[in-house]
Amino acid sequence: MPRTGRAVIAHGQTFEVREYPVPDPAPGALLLRQEMAGICGTDLHMWQNGIPGEMVLGHENVGVIEALGHDVTTDYVGNPLHEGDRVIFAPGTPHGAYGFYSKPDEAPHFRGGFADYILLDYPNTCYLKTALPPEVAVLTEPFTIGVHAVMRARIQLGDTVVVQGSGAIGLVTLVCARISGAAKIIVVGGPAKRLELAKRMGADVTIDIEQVRSAEERIELVLAQTPRKAGANVVFECAGFLPATPEGLRYVKRDGTFVEVGHFVDMGSVELNINQLMMRRNLRFEAIWGSSYEHFVRGLPILERNEFPFAEMVSHALPLSRVHEGFTALNGTYRLGDETAIKIVVRAAEA
Amino acid sequence: MPRTGRAVIAHGQTFEVREYPVPDPAPGALLLRQEMAGICGTDLHMWQNGIPGEMVLGHENVGVIEALGHDVTTDYVGNPLHEGDRVIFAPGTPHGAYGFYSKPDEAPHFRGGFADYILLDYPNTCYLKTALPPEVAVLTEPFTIGVHAVMRARIQLGDTVVVQGSGAIGLVTLVCARISGAAKIIVVGGPAKRLELAKRMGADVTIDIEQVRSAEERIELVLAQTPRKAGANVVFECAGFLPATPEGLRYVKRDGTFVEVGHFVDMGSVELNINQLMMRRNLRFEAIWGSSYEHFVRGLPILERNEFPFAEMVSHALPLSRVHEGFTALNGTYRLGDETAIKIVVRAAEA
Amino acid sequence: MPRTGRAVIAHGQTFEVREYPVPDPAPGALLLRQEMAGICGTDLHMWQNGIPGEMVLGHENVGVIEALGHDVTTDYVGNPLHEGDRVIFAPGTPHGAYGFYSKPDEAPHFRGGFADYILLDYPNTCYLKTALPPEVAVLTEPFTIGVHAVMRARIQLGDTVVVQGSGAIGLVTLVCARISGAAKIIVVGGPAKRLELAKRMGADVTIDIEQVRSAEERIELVLAQTPRKAGANVVFECAGFLPATPEGLRYVKRDGTFVEVGHFVDMGSVELNINQLMMRRNLRFEAIWGSSYEHFVRGLPILERNEFPFAEMVSHALPLSRVHEGFTALNGTYRLGDETAIKIVVRAAEA
Amino acid sequence: MPRTGRAVIAHGQTFEVREYPVPDPAPGALLLRQEMAGICGTDLHMWQNGIPGEMVLGHENVGVIEALGHDVTTDYVGNPLHEGDRVIFAPGTPHGAYGFYSKPDEAPHFRGGFADYILLDYPNTCYLKTALPPEVAVLTEPFTIGVHAVMRARIQLGDTVVVQGSGAIGLVTLVCARISGAAKIIVVGGPAKRLELAKRMGADVTIDIEQVRSAEERIELVLAQTPRKAGANVVFECAGFLPATPEGLRYVKRDGTFVEVGHFVDMGSVELNINQLMMRRNLRFEAIWGSSYEHFVRGLPILERNEFPFAEMVSHALPLSRVHEGFTALNGTYRLGDETAIKIVVRAAEA
Repeated sequence: MPRTGRAVIAHGQTFEVREYPVPDPAPGALLLRQEMAGICGTDLHMWQNGIPGEMVLGHENVGVIEALGHDVTTDYVGNPLHEGDRVIFAPGTPHGAYGFYSKPDEAPHFRGGFADYILLDYPNTCYLKTALPPEVAVLTEPFTIGVHAVMRARIQLGDTVVVQGSGAIGLVTLVCARISGAAKIIVVGGPAKRLELAKRMGADVTIDIEQVRSAEERIELVLAQTPRKAGANVVFECAGFLPATPEGLRYVKRDGTFVEVGHFVDMGSVELNINQLMMRRNLRFEAIWGSSYEHFVRGLPILERNEFPFAEMVSHALPLSRVHEGFTALNGTYRLGDETAIKIVVRAAEA
Repeated sequence: MPRTGRAVIAHGQTFEVREYPVPDPAPGALLLRQEMAGICGTDLHMWQNGIPGEMVLGHENVGVIEALGHDVTTDYVGNPLHEGDRVIFAPGTPHGAYGFYSKPDEAPHFRGGFADYILLDYPNTCYLKTALPPEVAVLTEPFTIGVHAVMRARIQLGDTVVVQGSGAIGLVTLVCARISGAAKIIVVGGPAKRLELAKRMGADVTIDIEQVRSAEERIELVLAQTPRKAGANVVFECAGFLPATPEGLRYVKRDGTFVEVGHFVDMGSVELNINQLMMRRNLRFEAIWGSSYEHFVRGLPILERNEFPFAEMVSHALPLSRVHEGFTALNGTYRLGDETAIKIVVRAAEA
Repeated sequence: MPRTGRAVIAHGQTFEVREYPVPDPAPGALLLRQEMAGICGTDLHMWQNGIPGEMVLGHENVGVIEALGHDVTTDYVGNPLHEGDRVIFAPGTPHGAYGFYSKPDEAPHFRGGFADYILLDYPNTCYLKTALPPEVAVLTEPFTIGVHAVMRARIQLGDTVVVQGSGAIGLVTLVCARISGAAKIIVVGGPAKRLELAKRMGADVTIDIEQVRSAEERIELVLAQTPRKAGANVVFECAGFLPATPEGLRYVKRDGTFVEVGHFVDMGSVELNINQLMMRRNLRFEAIWGSSYEHFVRGLPILERNEFPFAEMVSHALPLSRVHEGFTALNGTYRLGDETAIKIVVRAAEA
Repeated sequence: MPRTGRAVIAHGQTFEVREYPVPDPAPGALLLRQEMAGICGTDLHMWQNGIPGEMVLGHENVGVIEALGHDVTTDYVGNPLHEGDRVIFAPGTPHGAYGFYSKPDEAPHFRGGFADYILLDYPNTCYLKTALPPEVAVLTEPFTIGVHAVMRARIQLGDTVVVQGSGAIGLVTLVCARISGAAKIIVVGGPAKRLELAKRMGADVTIDIEQVRSAEERIELVLAQTPRKAGANVVFECAGFLPATPEGLRYVKRDGTFVEVGHFVDMGSVELNINQLMMRRNLRFEAIWGSSYEHFVRGLPILERNEFPFAEMVSHALPLSRVHEGFTALNGTYRLGDETAIKIVVRAAEA
């Protein structure tokens, strides 16, 4: 396989496309031709702080099998694999993480999604075959965060639920709450276009933070939507904005649950009155960190039911050469071209 | 209120309509004008054994408020109540159960649903206002069995689920499993018309016991529908047929859960090889008995979302004078007129 | 019963003893002769802020039945009751709380423990007979906080546990953790005398905050006591001191649990880095508020096993006339006479 | 290492001692000098049916490190390992199970405990260093069954618990229940000597099945020991005797839990009335199969607290040449020499 492929090398706040020889997969490994790779909030935050050294980013991935290591016959759950099959995979392994590859010039070069190829060569990588279109399959990794959050929340049939935030994580958490028995779901977020999508993804009520600018007013509106105005059974904080946490804690009912999904990056400290916000509510607080193989195995079949307009979450697809535009948009107005960004993906094929 | 109303008095296997004076509700009580009352498998079984003494049956109820005790202003969850409001209620209370009233000739006469009126006079009765049409509201009580079963099952996102039985309990359990995150649901039941409804209520796969008559064959078909043919995460036994239990246990995956919902009546013993069927699967077995106020409070808002063809579950509505026809049909061919019976209800208004 | 009895009336930071006629218990009620009533941290804090109006305090109680309402024959769990039996009771009821009685001059006068008599006349009060000596029985209410905390923590066999704080709540939580399968318990507290008692109540390791004054150093010492220095499975914060929470969060292992038991009074806000302290640990945080009847029913039989030196927790017993000395000691040096205070109780009988 | 060692080869119902060369441990492997290996009920049952082919039995093991594979430096939880250290290990691995080795004449010969040496050469074997005396360490594997059973039972503080059976599994389950917050434990078993040990291992009440021969009478005695005679919160069936299951189900309280720990071998079917015994109790039934690495990691530190007379559970230690005497005793009168057998172990050293 004497071909070459491109990879996008991030450094500081710059992106550079380099060519490398395409590796042959060793026994146990798998070579993918990249289809799409999402830009994640964690990527954005690292870029905002300046990427240290050089790195191949892209940990939300979907691709098509270009070549199989000679002994690879099935995926992680036992489905048979062949060249040309579409697969998604969990980026974290016990041996290293795809999408945070810090030695791009060293072979195998291709251990991140912003590239023409992805080599799955860490032992025990969880890869799963799927027939989903790539614009849904690429959402699997963020979807697993919602799966993890909702499993930890232990939503019960008939619960009233609030989701704070209507970005990608908010939307997938909304869907997971919807299919977990919530009787009513309130989404607090914005802008309007995202909330409109939230409605079609299962929100019963939306509150637009661009319209209702006072936290006190939002709290009143949320409580008014809950039985006896006593608060929600479960609140998911998916905004990743420090003041969202004390605000969201006030949405919770006595004996209720608050699930923190939005603080994947360190944005500093927040002042909390533990007595007022947590003790007096006799509350459970679950802090969600990433996801595991189990969440991929559970989440993919739900995406595959395709009962929600998942594909609309991918607002933009950029070629490798324009990765920087995605980061710039997410860093600023959340707009790219004429569209509000929800999930921006990077696509190797120039189409 | 010098009027009279009719009640159906069951005795042995006979039903007789008698007239009684309509009571005024005391403080704390509520008088309903009956709209519909379902015939339940428990009613059927008692009738098959011969009703001891005299009894007013009918514990799956919906009615409209005819009169409010002077201090009754809200329902169990705090919604304001007025004459003319539709309400459903939990038949069991700490002070007695509606629908199993054994002294029909003693005032207040009206403590069961097969009658023109229902007096809710036990302290702490859980009654709930609803705007559902009566043919859905009447399903609340059986629906709470499904809510109870699925809460105890602790279905997780992505689970593969089997429901044995496609009668009323099977169908409501199916819906509760569907909205609790199951990735795939297999219903084993019959006849075909019920399975067709099961499909529209969320079944992904149905297996018709009238077509596939061998248990071994059904087990093979079920396993073939599960990941790696390893079995289902959760199996609900809603058939209420003794051999269904050992068959259903064989559908369960190692570390899985079996939920027994179908044995509300004593049909005798079954032979179980605990080592083979349970131990080697390291299995959890949950035996579900009835439902509680919590299940009504949780279940009603889900029915009110009305996302499934619940109303089609009511296959027949009979006047008070024809109650016996309902029991006869359920005792025999499960057909009444030209239709397969699913849920037969009794309706006071002659329409 | 034309006798009179004394009650201690708190007002601002003063205490006054008044005499009132002793009431007869109405049907359903119970009159106790007070034996002991503990001074609680909540009492202390209210007193520090100045008791608003007048109040009879004392919600940690034990007494002997002086008179039974004519229809009272058993306690809450069905044990027969007679005059002279010792009982404890849950201070909170759905109808009002004992020990926070704000109209002392109004009959029945006796709804708090700092008095000669206690009238249990709220409907559905949970009172339980016990043969424990009063100096152990008086600990039931604080013990239920430990029961609640440990049930919510869901300690598993073999867990490593940390308890922050060695006051009454710390010690009862320690005992509950000890009998819930912890393999190792580390107590971080002081002074030395309390830690010595903690050792006899089940602590394997103690760290004296008077000796190890740096939080960083304490964190290092705690981690060194945990498997692979990875942190504890469960940490209970029972110190009720704001900086204890961020310190204690750093004791917790990834996927572990932090239980906040110490913030029953509002001491203001604390700065928390949610990403660093909670998210990166994928942690569960349980905030415990008070206890319920279930915790009394569960906790009393455990106290009755009497396997720990509970009685030593009562460091001082003061007569009604010296209540102020107890508050003054707890407000200052935690010393009264020559002894370190742990639990100071008020005793009606002058001995 | 040109030495030889003995192994006991079971075949049908015979045992034969053979000599094999002692293997050198490959990288990653560990060679133990055997100290003790327990005879388990599963071993007994296989022997009763006739061991198929040839097999080296012994899966409850403790030994001392004779030689370390050159890269083995720590045990499963990170403790440093050296020659001479005592270790226990989990017999089951993803690659095969120690103690059921069916090709004894093939190298490495030593994969079972009834031998002079044990070679731990399966990848990912969980071995743990311990300073326990061998007569306690040898109990680790059966102890993990109790750990598993009690974790699945989810005993809550204050529960009333019944253990059926006072053999090794009954006793370790008793201890695990004792340290998990049970307020009262009733053991139903025999003979008297085992019950006397049960008392010292935490039983509050014992019922001797040799004295109370009627199941109905035992049920009455058990219920009389529970609050309001309503039954136990949790019942553990550790007798492994078919009629014990329907009897034990009748000990359980409504909403309670029954844990089946005793049916590790297939003894056929039992008649169960699911409606009467399970449904009407709204019961949870947990069927326990073996144990996992987690149970070893959790259980060993509890054994190491050594708070119960574990060592007394080892009633007999037999040399390799007398293995058959152990099986014969367990197959008959449960007596060996003048002593009642509880746990019989096999010891390589002739002492």
